[in-house]
Amino acid sequence: MKINYKGNIDLTIGAGGRAMNQLIHDLMLAEFDNEFLAQQGDQAILPPANGKLAFSTDSYVVSPLFFNGGDIGSLAINGTVNDLAAGGATPLYIAAGFIIEEGFPLAQLREIVKSMAKAAKTANVKIVTGDTKVVEKGKGDGIFINTSGIGVVENDWVATSPQTDDLVIINGAIGDHGMAIMSKRQGLNFASDISSDCAALNSLIASLAPYQKHIRIMRDPTRGGVSAVLNEWATFYNCSFEIDEEKLLVNESVRGLSEILGFDPLHIANEGKVMLVVAKDYADEICSLMKNHPLGQESRIIAKVNPASQVKVSMKTLFGGLRRVDWLNGEQLPRIC
Amino acid sequence: MKINYKGNIDLTIGAGGRAMNQLIHDLMLAEFDNEFLAQQGDQAILPPANGKLAFSTDSYVVSPLFFNGGDIGSLAINGTVNDLAAGGATPLYIAAGFIIEEGFPLAQLREIVKSMAKAAKTANVKIVTGDTKVVEKGKGDGIFINTSGIGVVENDWVATSPQTDDLVIINGAIGDHGMAIMSKRQGLNFASDISSDCAALNSLIASLAPYQKHIRIMRDPTRGGVSAVLNEWATFYNCSFEIDEEKLLVNESVRGLSEILGFDPLHIANEGKVMLVVAKDYADEICSLMKNHPLGQESRIIAKVNPASQVKVSMKTLFGGLRRVDWLNGEQLPRIC
Repeated sequence: MKINYKGNIDLTIGAGGRAMNQLIHDLMLAEFDNEFLAQQGDQAILPPANGKLAFSTDSYVVSPLFFNGGDIGSLAINGTVNDLAAGGATPLYIAAGFIIEEGFPLAQLREIVKSMAKAAKTANVKIVTGDTKVVEKGKGDGIFINTSGIGVVENDWVATSPQTDDLVIINGAIGDHGMAIMSKRQGLNFASDISSDCAALNSLIASLAPYQKHIRIMRDPTRGGVSAVLNEWATFYNCSFEIDEEKLLVNESVRGLSEILGFDPLHIANEGKVMLVVAKDYADEICSLMKNHPLGQESRIIAKVNPASQVKVSMKTLFGGLRRVDWLNGEQLPRIC
Repeated sequence: MKINYKGNIDLTIGAGGRAMNQLIHDLMLAEFDNEFLAQQGDQAILPPANGKLAFSTDSYVVSPLFFNGGDIGSLAINGTVNDLAAGGATPLYIAAGFIIEEGFPLAQLREIVKSMAKAAKTANVKIVTGDTKVVEKGKGDGIFINTSGIGVVENDWVATSPQTDDLVIINGAIGDHGMAIMSKRQGLNFASDISSDCAALNSLIASLAPYQKHIRIMRDPTRGGVSAVLNEWATFYNCSFEIDEEKLLVNESVRGLSEILGFDPLHIANEGKVMLVVAKDYADEICSLMKNHPLGQESRIIAKVNPASQVKVSMKTLFGGLRRVDWLNGEQLPRIC
């Protein structure tokens, strides 16, 4: 009996019986195909890893599920890959947990699973184990996906405290992902050219290995955007940051939509960006190296590290003033990832 | 500013800003307290593991959230610990992902987080990284928790094919967890003494190390119950199983409630049981050893392995007949875990 992809998810699939078993075999095992998943246990048994481990988890509840530049499937893979890579690890294995609402179209599930498989292949990671639960109609919202990832820290890189005068690099424009979601959510046609930057950053980050001892910390600025990362770093490492507005790249349509909706691009989520605090004397070289990578062509220095201050993050504006950059404190952009 | 636990979760907490940051600090970092979580990155960096890795994930959507013998928090820890242990691994690290519905009481969240912390301590695992998302009212159902776990396979144990005449051991009564949920869900007072068997099985399984070369496979019979595990094994390893009904232990109130609701205890989820296929000649010794452990006092041999057959799983009934034990094929017991 083959799955009819014109149908919908029903509660039988969540009950651990034959229907569930068939869905896992016909769709997930086939698409995610690898030797570890083929063990079909409640756990994957993986080879010993040569180095420290990195472990990360994220649940993805993005709405809408499909958007310009990606979907919840590619997002779920790339987001977790990026969290591992930003910790200095080589991402290796992904575990995927699905929570699906009764009535969700099987055709959409298939599209999402295929998208995950493609993203995993691109990022060179394997989806080695998984779980599927079904909740009653009205008790979920289509599909939520949790991914957890294991990476190995093959080199000696560890995050260290930023030093005064260190510089902050980002690999391009900010706000694309968040505004791609918002334009789709609000049905704004004039902003339909905004595409999410959703991408796996592990190969870009790996290309920086020659400079690893000059890199203090890395982080991908997702929810809460660039401002959340800088505010968290300033608090955790007891320093402050000064952004140079002139250096920030914000694509024209993202800027336009942000202004209309009243958002600050510094608060908006990215899904293909990494921020690095690097030693001042190597910042230009690191930036140049990043520009050689397809995902780093617009890399730039956007901020510098100052000693701890009551104002944790400030920005030198285009008009020459200095304004405080707080992290957002309201209900801006729920379910952006 | 301290969190007011008389309040409810709102969307600001899910947006990656200051409210989220505070909840993570004041509640989760404090309760789950360990050196890895204290890194506060988007990933935990963990020491090298000495052996093969085990990796497992499960999303928990149980309804109701609190029940006799446990809650969604203890379930989320024990379930993933058991999946790792049944793979022959020593569970070490847990990642926790929360999907919380707007309006969920903070007091309940705190109770669940405390329960997770307690269960993790009992099972000797550390919750090293996490994620919290908030969805709008009506787009979730209180709280869903995903846990992923990493374990290390310290010995050489690997799952191998069952052999004809091997025996199947389980560490006690079946159906307790599923019926504890059902009795609570349906408000059935007469069945209120049914308590979930929710427990971490890693120390019981570890105590069997002296016999590891005589253990072929292990699995915890959760969703789908004993019948799902045996049917999956029969399919995967190309063999069949014959259960002896006389040997099955079903607690009186579980049996009574199953009969009233029309369920077969063989299909009902357990959360503190492990099934082992072991070499015939060592089955009694292994069973005796299990009885020495607090979670194994009612261990017993319940089935034997036969050659592959069209009927994958059968049961010798109390009346002397042989009936087929299929896995469930309907919408029995959604959201049991």
